[in-house]
Amino acid sequence: MREVGVIGVGMTKFSKYLGTSLKDLGRVACLAALKDAGISPKDIQVGYCGNAVSGVMTGQTMVLGQLIMRDLGIVGIPITNIENACSSGSSAFREGWIAVAAGLYDVALVVGAEKLYASDTGKTVQALAGASDVEVEGGLGLIMPGVWAMRAKKHMEKYGTTIDQLAKVSVKNHKNGCFNPNSQYQKECTLEEVHKARMICDPLTVLHCSPIGDGAAAAVLCSKEKAYQYTTKPIWVAASILTTGTYDILRDITSNELERRAAKEAYEFAGIGPEDISLAEVHDCFTIAEFLRCESLGLCPEGEYGRWVDEGLTEIGGKLPVNPSGGLLAKGHPVGATGVAQVAEVVWHLRGEAGKRQVRNAKIGLTHCSGGAIMGDTAACTVQILKK
Amino acid sequence: MREVGVIGVGMTKFSKYLGTSLKDLGRVACLAALKDAGISPKDIQVGYCGNAVSGVMTGQTMVLGQLIMRDLGIVGIPITNIENACSSGSSAFREGWIAVAAGLYDVALVVGAEKLYASDTGKTVQALAGASDVEVEGGLGLIMPGVWAMRAKKHMEKYGTTIDQLAKVSVKNHKNGCFNPNSQYQKECTLEEVHKARMICDPLTVLHCSPIGDGAAAAVLCSKEKAYQYTTKPIWVAASILTTGTYDILRDITSNELERRAAKEAYEFAGIGPEDISLAEVHDCFTIAEFLRCESLGLCPEGEYGRWVDEGLTEIGGKLPVNPSGGLLAKGHPVGATGVAQVAEVVWHLRGEAGKRQVRNAKIGLTHCSGGAIMGDTAACTVQILKK
Repeated sequence: MREVGVIGVGMTKFSKYLGTSLKDLGRVACLAALKDAGISPKDIQVGYCGNAVSGVMTGQTMVLGQLIMRDLGIVGIPITNIENACSSGSSAFREGWIAVAAGLYDVALVVGAEKLYASDTGKTVQALAGASDVEVEGGLGLIMPGVWAMRAKKHMEKYGTTIDQLAKVSVKNHKNGCFNPNSQYQKECTLEEVHKARMICDPLTVLHCSPIGDGAAAAVLCSKEKAYQYTTKPIWVAASILTTGTYDILRDITSNELERRAAKEAYEFAGIGPEDISLAEVHDCFTIAEFLRCESLGLCPEGEYGRWVDEGLTEIGGKLPVNPSGGLLAKGHPVGATGVAQVAEVVWHLRGEAGKRQVRNAKIGLTHCSGGAIMGDTAACTVQILKK
Repeated sequence: MREVGVIGVGMTKFSKYLGTSLKDLGRVACLAALKDAGISPKDIQVGYCGNAVSGVMTGQTMVLGQLIMRDLGIVGIPITNIENACSSGSSAFREGWIAVAAGLYDVALVVGAEKLYASDTGKTVQALAGASDVEVEGGLGLIMPGVWAMRAKKHMEKYGTTIDQLAKVSVKNHKNGCFNPNSQYQKECTLEEVHKARMICDPLTVLHCSPIGDGAAAAVLCSKEKAYQYTTKPIWVAASILTTGTYDILRDITSNELERRAAKEAYEFAGIGPEDISLAEVHDCFTIAEFLRCESLGLCPEGEYGRWVDEGLTEIGGKLPVNPSGGLLAKGHPVGATGVAQVAEVVWHLRGEAGKRQVRNAKIGLTHCSGGAIMGDTAACTVQILKK
């Protein structure tokens, strides 16, 4: 296994693109990453594309990565399409890392792209429900907002977490989004607005939930041997972990064995501990998710994320900035793009290029995605650790 | 890169399984491969699943591999879902090979699974049309039978290939299917029956076309270091190549630059030539496809496959048996399963376990899949070379 660096990243603004094709979104992100890396399309040796639901949303069931890359002149190389629910983009990133780390290729282009917005929201809901075990969970009606609402209630009961603390994550992430030109929402919200927003599933109002949106993100990975041909500031992949497990819905729904295990593997692989992390982009599909993930990833002691939020420890100037990009809650969550966009965000911070949302002295960043079926051991969790 | 062996393979019979779930088909294939390898599910360290259209056909858009493997007790490991149109299964196999060859894991389980049969054939056609560039080709109505019919006509004009020679491929593959208990069709057909069958797209009758069907196949890959712990007869992966390119529809439709390039890379990687191949499983989605693929893969001189067929050179007892399994034409073509089933077939021959269809003294086998959009450089082509 060789050392692998990220030499370029790029993304579209996450938004609602009813009139723009999924392929075009992917190409815009790829072009940005290629330009950022200062690399020509003809130097790309292998491609990976992460997407979750384009078959249902656009009818384009197959070869999306090939279609995205073709019009950039990236042809005649291996291109593989990857799907792992909300971890689709991050899993594509990981396959790119493996291919370069294995020594098979020197330069990989990874793109994640998704269109979720439709004039008929029912179509989006149906597509996303395909992340569950449709034959079993589909019939139960056990959908994501319901699961996360239950987890919120249980966390509140078990640790005394308050609805104010939960809502403060939304306030924080929406504030962060204001400093991110790629964020779907760039508008602050108040605690009162979070509380009074439309109820989705008690206690989660719509401002506790990540929005429906479209977008793409891309990254260029390169072997250490070649990285300095293209950039003076590669960001190294210290760990890229994928694992499968359960959301523990039938055991302890306030904790994730899945994330704990993935994080443990990642810290061991990288030879660091959670205390070394300068910033984290975690999968805040709902406000409560940021609590559970940060606790399960070992970034914060179990049950204490509420206090951390109260004390501002996870804000951009705090002890451990979490989701400085705005996170899924504000930046948006076009599923296949999310994991790659998280990598882009961390790369910008480690390079000192994150503008007004820059985390100072950022040296090591963590990204996390989890997705997939709710019950049973079928969720896919990724943790990447990136360092200067 | 380490040497990697196939230590176990298995598949379901390819058939029409209206009442059986896609997950169950996948599990049956995995169980067969695990049993064949003499390995416990708990020894599997990484999983890959190939599927093309389950989102459209079953609503299960995501985490199919996790769902298949969960009930076998395969949890807590990285599992990744792969889609590359007709090369989905073979691309999943290739990612498994890379992960083990890289030294990240010792044992990988690869499964390919697909359900295409539906009470409404229109649904299947729509799903498969997702392999084209739906925004462009979809509007043109340029679908696979039309493309292959044009290629047949051109091959006939250019090389004097006859309709009898084309039909003989169907006769041969249906005959081979009779000796394969996993074949969807196990019934011989005559030249006259091929000619008189229902016309699909002139000159291709329905017996020139691969059928709609369901099924799954699986393979266990293992590092050389560990392979002999499980088996006395590992089959080595001498090359596993994926590339992207064009079907040359706007240039020379009687030849595939795509296959030529993939084959060249594969022969170079394996350090052999096409003359060393003992048997080939090639992607005979239509009779004419077997002609073009065998010629482009360098297995037969360009324009001479018709003569080879006349002389029986590609029959099981011939100079180069092609599709001894029955091929896509008789064995069937549940898209995501096909590439892994081809590997299983070659493994059985190289081990001398192919029963009545056994190719004698088989030492090196080749498998080939191509799929994806018709125009433009977006087709995915895989070539695997396996050896004793």
